[in-house]
Amino acid sequence: MSDRISYETLSWESPAGASAVDELRGGRLTLIDQTRLPAEFLRMTCETPEDVWRAIKRLSVRGAPAIGIAAAYGVCLGIQPLFAGADRPTRGELLAAVEKTAAYLATSRPTAVNLFWALDRMKARAAAEKDAAAEEIAAALMTEAKTIHDEDRELCRRIGRHGAGLVKDGDVLLTHCNAGALATADYGTALGVFYAAQEEGKKIRVYADETRPLLQGARLTAWELAVHGIDVTLICDSMAAMLMRQKKIDAVFVGADRIAANGDVANKIGTYGVAVSARAHGVPFYVAAPFSTFDLTLSDGSQIPIEERDPEEIRRGFGRQTAPDGIKIYNPAFDVTPAELISGIVTEKGVIAPVTADEIRRFIQNE
Amino acid sequence: MSDRISYETLSWESPAGASAVDELRGGRLTLIDQTRLPAEFLRMTCETPEDVWRAIKRLSVRGAPAIGIAAAYGVCLGIQPLFAGADRPTRGELLAAVEKTAAYLATSRPTAVNLFWALDRMKARAAAEKDAAAEEIAAALMTEAKTIHDEDRELCRRIGRHGAGLVKDGDVLLTHCNAGALATADYGTALGVFYAAQEEGKKIRVYADETRPLLQGARLTAWELAVHGIDVTLICDSMAAMLMRQKKIDAVFVGADRIAANGDVANKIGTYGVAVSARAHGVPFYVAAPFSTFDLTLSDGSQIPIEERDPEEIRRGFGRQTAPDGIKIYNPAFDVTPAELISGIVTEKGVIAPVTADEIRRFIQNE
Repeated sequence: MSDRISYETLSWESPAGASAVDELRGGRLTLIDQTRLPAEFLRMTCETPEDVWRAIKRLSVRGAPAIGIAAAYGVCLGIQPLFAGADRPTRGELLAAVEKTAAYLATSRPTAVNLFWALDRMKARAAAEKDAAAEEIAAALMTEAKTIHDEDRELCRRIGRHGAGLVKDGDVLLTHCNAGALATADYGTALGVFYAAQEEGKKIRVYADETRPLLQGARLTAWELAVHGIDVTLICDSMAAMLMRQKKIDAVFVGADRIAANGDVANKIGTYGVAVSARAHGVPFYVAAPFSTFDLTLSDGSQIPIEERDPEEIRRGFGRQTAPDGIKIYNPAFDVTPAELISGIVTEKGVIAPVTADEIRRFIQNE
Repeated sequence: MSDRISYETLSWESPAGASAVDELRGGRLTLIDQTRLPAEFLRMTCETPEDVWRAIKRLSVRGAPAIGIAAAYGVCLGIQPLFAGADRPTRGELLAAVEKTAAYLATSRPTAVNLFWALDRMKARAAAEKDAAAEEIAAALMTEAKTIHDEDRELCRRIGRHGAGLVKDGDVLLTHCNAGALATADYGTALGVFYAAQEEGKKIRVYADETRPLLQGARLTAWELAVHGIDVTLICDSMAAMLMRQKKIDAVFVGADRIAANGDVANKIGTYGVAVSARAHGVPFYVAAPFSTFDLTLSDGSQIPIEERDPEEIRRGFGRQTAPDGIKIYNPAFDVTPAELISGIVTEKGVIAPVTADEIRRFIQNE
């Protein structure tokens, strides 16, 4: 990271006060550096779009909704230098800076559609301010980024409430990766369902897949659920099928990084294997995600670009070499779960089921 | 390990000369410490049954056949002290030491049946030497251990040849954990199939699951296959299903730790998930194992005891803490794959298919 990045140690005693992405204040965007969890609990500061780009790229901030929020604030950081000098920028200079910053931030991660969705919203807002001066456009962009942030909080609550209707008292649930408070502005999508069920007084237990290679389940989900008082047990990804065979899992809830028009879902690598296993054992498999995760320009999941990441994440992921040098390694960050394996998609408007192109279109048109 | 354990660094240039377990010589059993691979390539020395017990327990030696061989030599080490003093042991003293050592070594790992099979063979051999003096029984036990060792070499070759008949030129194969040279006396069971196919001139490619939590696929299988010139690509366990969906896998070959009379197979945790996925995608799923892996006293896999291991293997397996302290962790070392998901069991006598109790009985009776 750049020399500008500063760290602040957070309190383990009151982690609920810390959020994945804080509101942009005084030209500084602070967020939890999730690469350090669970060993260290640190808030980092971004002052430029480059800082935000690197934070997204190296997964200091991750989870589709949180990436979108960070990117929106990143656009605000990108226009800051225009106001640093004595001369005020023109409207044209400002719009050019918005375009340039958005195009740059869009290159940080290729799969999470919320990134592009948030950047498009920021560009559209700037363009909509037709007769405005540069300062007014800048203020409008700041408002827009905060709106995206606020809306996500509300979305999480609504998704949680709709999803909780699928959870029975006493259920044992499985999740993969982290679609929780650390992935969103509030308490998450898939994990939001668990939190909402808990708030409704339902007693649940959760198995969390550790989620190789970057162990978001072990480092983030297990930590986050425990902090919120939910009974969580960590397993390796390869253990989920055995638990299902033993009839220990009542339902699966996961998040999504992008959803095609037919309901095919791109999510963290390993999600597809969980869905195959759930189907084989008759376990309901739900995806929880806001509408901003849908990419209706893609007819099906085969068109979703899958990010391939550095093989060193697998070879030397956690301080010790675990595979020989020179060995070929394949490291896709996501996989695609076909709609036919998904029992329902939990959105802020309700549960889409069955998961078909028609049903998705109907939900979105009713929006 | 005890103070007696000494280490010798082996050559990376000629690893084929090193074997998982060497022949017992001069009261010293040497074996590759597999916990150190791939970072370090070391041979360790065991001089007592306690050394062997710990080597098995901590997986310095692992793989069902190799555990059996090490345990057989461990019995020989257990009677050594009787010959150290001036007085010769009686036949009764010797038989008592054999029983005591075998009972002790049997507690090292609960799932691998070859361990019990090898110890039973050693006890039976001692008991069979009815009119023999203690020295003669000791010599017979040494011969028996070497016979178990030699037989495993021959078994690997036969399994390899039978399994290679299932592999076509150009096939892309998947394996889980390590059922190779590091798990046996020779070139392995599942990996023996790959080596035999290669020797027959078939060009194959292999995907190796890294195999959490102890990463035998990353640390051992990927290394071993590369050393033998096989085109290997390492993946995380959670990526196998995606590859099958993309039609990139032609067949799966895995080893076994115990096989029930009906063909249910206990093998490294994660094997079952691979089998579920293989079935869902129409990919043949083969188990390669010698007859000594069958436990006909168990009618089905539900009776196989599943070893649960230390949660710290998952929490701190990579040298750095990857899950919070205090989080519950479930760490079963094995799972059971039901016979109906197995396309065939490759044994030293041929391929058992379909995998049914009748067919298994027929094979064993023809032995």
